[in-house]
Amino acid sequence: MTQNIYDDPIFFGEYARLDRSLQGLDGAPEWPALRALLPDPRGLRVLDLGCGYGWFCRWASERGAARVLGIDVSARMLQRARRDWPADGIEYRRADLEDVDLPAASFDLVYSSLAFHYLTRLADLAARIHAALVPGGRLVFSVEHPIATASHNPTWVQREPEPIWPVDHYFDEGPRTTRWLVEGVLKQHRMLGTYFEMLRTAGFTVTHVIEWGPTPEQVAARPEWATERERPQFLLVAAVRS
Amino acid sequence: MTQNIYDDPIFFGEYARLDRSLQGLDGAPEWPALRALLPDPRGLRVLDLGCGYGWFCRWASERGAARVLGIDVSARMLQRARRDWPADGIEYRRADLEDVDLPAASFDLVYSSLAFHYLTRLADLAARIHAALVPGGRLVFSVEHPIATASHNPTWVQREPEPIWPVDHYFDEGPRTTRWLVEGVLKQHRMLGTYFEMLRTAGFTVTHVIEWGPTPEQVAARPEWATERERPQFLLVAAVRS
Repeated sequence: MTQNIYDDPIFFGEYARLDRSLQGLDGAPEWPALRALLPDPRGLRVLDLGCGYGWFCRWASERGAARVLGIDVSARMLQRARRDWPADGIEYRRADLEDVDLPAASFDLVYSSLAFHYLTRLADLAARIHAALVPGGRLVFSVEHPIATASHNPTWVQREPEPIWPVDHYFDEGPRTTRWLVEGVLKQHRMLGTYFEMLRTAGFTVTHVIEWGPTPEQVAARPEWATERERPQFLLVAAVRS
Repeated sequence: MTQNIYDDPIFFGEYARLDRSLQGLDGAPEWPALRALLPDPRGLRVLDLGCGYGWFCRWASERGAARVLGIDVSARMLQRARRDWPADGIEYRRADLEDVDLPAASFDLVYSSLAFHYLTRLADLAARIHAALVPGGRLVFSVEHPIATASHNPTWVQREPEPIWPVDHYFDEGPRTTRWLVEGVLKQHRMLGTYFEMLRTAGFTVTHVIEWGPTPEQVAARPEWATERERPQFLLVAAVRS
């Protein structure tokens, strides 16, 4: 069972105030890079794993997706999604991605934003995603970058002339408990090579590997993001069911 | 023009005393992982880019490669290779990989060990390698891992309970001058995503991405390698010409 921190009322309250909660996709600085990996959703059957407030489900539906299914473990987030966007072409379902059953060969595109790093048995989900896609179907997802998740003490270290990001325990894959909005958020550290091998083993061909940090233009607009150019924050991946 | 540090007499003297120089492939702890990515060389036309002393050329030749061409910029290393292993099926050629001409569709396997991170125009070489391979041909190579090359001051930082490896300037690709055996060794930092995209653009399908560090068994045999489990040292990649 996933930790489901999003149903923690304090976490949920903090999360609701983030730009990506208030402004949706346009409030997520990595969205332009992730969108560039996506096919045109027109006519596609789309599955969003960890759909949260449903911003991506709306995006795909508004652009003509034939059907959109959003799955999330958080009752609070799905309640908001259903309330704010009760569109005909979107179905929301509450389930834990660790063991959710997915219908076979039913989707053209599977999308997931910053959800997979919460899961302990991701290889198993990759196999289920593969079975849920039609041949030639696409998987596009983001996770926290392994450089960001490796350390047992993931905090900037002051060193002149600029702060450094610590990497330790990189090969020691598994749970990491960190503070993010609240204490005790549980994530899973995986090596970049492990994500790649997991997809290959499940039957995917990886087509894009993007290490994301804010662009120089984004840093110019938000100077407080400058340190985010020191190390990648997110990993964006696109793969095709072969 | 590549720096060609290997023809610096002091560097060459130090390099000659490393395990990987004295013992060949078996002295390189990453060799078992790299070998696992290689096809059986029997009957293959093999190109080794940055062949050094020629240890891999010998390995491929001894295992029945139809033809082996080793290219290196270092006259000293090629002199040693020609002296120690004047085999009929191996040809050594001195050239700078930055601009070497490669014959079209002439190889089944291109191999390179820890050479590409010296090159400034690697995308251009990737295109020439693609043209030099037959369709279905393989490229297998190792480089220093981007986590190892990013920092402007790549030295372990003491922190309890274990040392941390610094990551900074990850998105700032380009030259890094470090001390390795001697001062002033010039390498090129590239992001992992850049290696991937470079290969994709050149027409390769990446099949394996291995982030290498010594195995727990290797650390048990060489306790001084323990910190090498904190962050990946090398990146091993296999790709197929599609």
